[in-house]
Amino acid sequence: MSVPFPRHAVIREVGLRDGLQSIRTILPTASKEAWIRGAYAAGLRELEVGSFVPAHLLPQLADTAQLVAFARTLPGLFVSVLVPNLRGAQDALASGADLMLVPLSASHAHSLANLRKTPDEVVAEVARIRAARDASGAKTLIEGGVGTAFGCTLQGHVDPDEVLRLMQALLDAGADRVSLADTVGYADPHMVRELFARAVDIAGDRFWCGHFHDTRGLGLANVHAALETGVTRFDACLAGIGGCPHAPGASGNVTTEDLAYMLGSMGIDTGIDIGRLLALREDVAGWLKDETLHGTLWRAGLPKTFPAQPAGAAA
Amino acid sequence: MSVPFPRHAVIREVGLRDGLQSIRTILPTASKEAWIRGAYAAGLRELEVGSFVPAHLLPQLADTAQLVAFARTLPGLFVSVLVPNLRGAQDALASGADLMLVPLSASHAHSLANLRKTPDEVVAEVARIRAARDASGAKTLIEGGVGTAFGCTLQGHVDPDEVLRLMQALLDAGADRVSLADTVGYADPHMVRELFARAVDIAGDRFWCGHFHDTRGLGLANVHAALETGVTRFDACLAGIGGCPHAPGASGNVTTEDLAYMLGSMGIDTGIDIGRLLALREDVAGWLKDETLHGTLWRAGLPKTFPAQPAGAAA
Repeated sequence: MSVPFPRHAVIREVGLRDGLQSIRTILPTASKEAWIRGAYAAGLRELEVGSFVPAHLLPQLADTAQLVAFARTLPGLFVSVLVPNLRGAQDALASGADLMLVPLSASHAHSLANLRKTPDEVVAEVARIRAARDASGAKTLIEGGVGTAFGCTLQGHVDPDEVLRLMQALLDAGADRVSLADTVGYADPHMVRELFARAVDIAGDRFWCGHFHDTRGLGLANVHAALETGVTRFDACLAGIGGCPHAPGASGNVTTEDLAYMLGSMGIDTGIDIGRLLALREDVAGWLKDETLHGTLWRAGLPKTFPAQPAGAAA
Repeated sequence: MSVPFPRHAVIREVGLRDGLQSIRTILPTASKEAWIRGAYAAGLRELEVGSFVPAHLLPQLADTAQLVAFARTLPGLFVSVLVPNLRGAQDALASGADLMLVPLSASHAHSLANLRKTPDEVVAEVARIRAARDASGAKTLIEGGVGTAFGCTLQGHVDPDEVLRLMQALLDAGADRVSLADTVGYADPHMVRELFARAVDIAGDRFWCGHFHDTRGLGLANVHAALETGVTRFDACLAGIGGCPHAPGASGNVTTEDLAYMLGSMGIDTGIDIGRLLALREDVAGWLKDETLHGTLWRAGLPKTFPAQPAGAAA
């Protein structure tokens, strides 16, 4: 029972990408820059600031290049973007982003519906992205993110063996990092423990991140299960924005402030100042006042005893 | 990493007690009986139906004896009540309840404020309750529930050693069962794993139940951590009612339907039909339409793949 928890973990704030792409409000660039500045001030050091996709598809994210440029002015901030294909990767390389995440959907049905490619066609695109990156001399890391890793609203069951085959294929194609995403909120802690343990065995240090949605309330329980497999980086959105088009009103990504509280309470250092994070949440709530927000800590506040763990409790 | 999860777990629905005592709506007895009937139809086999406290203190629960009598008509239903003292225990013994939960607060400040007794005075009362139970010949089990086991809004820190000392004292005083409660939502999975592992070592099979509040969003993560220590019984409230007077709008107990979904998805049998549980939630929402409800599953619905685990996955 004494599985050691890590001493440190990283929260990658993805609200500016996964959050904003799923809601109706189009946030002005100035507000997004204030969000980036606030997140940085609160101690977050990894942000996904947007996607390099055609502006007519996601007008919410049309200012991604500008946001990367702004974020790069903040010392020590690691700046990620999402790219769906080689065209987007070229934009990402030009922008100077530190990392580009290429999403792959392990569900063939979801992959064809969302990306109009089979998963293996995405793997082939990653090989081309790797070649382009290497040819450019840029240091931008390539992360292959395997989505619908725990099931899919279209296809239903997704075979864990197929998820891991595709993850291995991404590594073989030249992805520097790989991650797993519960895109539709189907995971439970048992599934997470099983799949993440196998994924970490395969990818070792190249296993980068766990991406969980809180669609059915299990987001933080799933993070807890993933922590037990040694994973120490998690995506999250301030105020839990994002949602799921298939479940109106359902919450989106794991909520940054609740996750920061859980990790902090467990004695796992994230470098985050939760008071500042809650202040930023208030700003975000003001900018997104027509959207349904999520999260719990903002209502209840921090416990009187926080941080609760004596130094060294997380051995 | 391969800590086995249990095959079976029990959810004790405590909405009729912990939920209703914390909200303003006074539910008519007929609705409470419909709740009991609905919970039974959904497969729940343990219910806490009320408290034997003076009616002027908790008018919401004044019909507890009637509810015990009604619940006892349902074959195989295990009926619990809360009793704060010997007077209440005598009522519980007369009612024929299967179990009476005597709450003790490990926080001395909370104990004095809420129960007007020190924790050790509660232990002494449990000894008197045990004597009365044995003298009566009744089979009603005595559960000593140690609350504020992870901290307290009044006192702040609560020493785990003191929590376990009081738990041992309850056993020594004649409690048949003991349990731990995170009364104010201060627990995290690390604390739960540490404290529950020690509690199970001490109490063995007499360790009965984990009672978590979702005040800061960690309810299900904490249940997950407790499962890993071998605990297989958890309190929960339909629609997460209960809240906390110190945190307006904050959620209350772990939500029954979300917990049933998590356990079911993990391949842990609870005997619960989640579809029926969600139908009951709709009834409860109708009865409590002026109250803030919680929970996530009711919005998103069950995954297409549920139940996701192949038989035997939870070894």
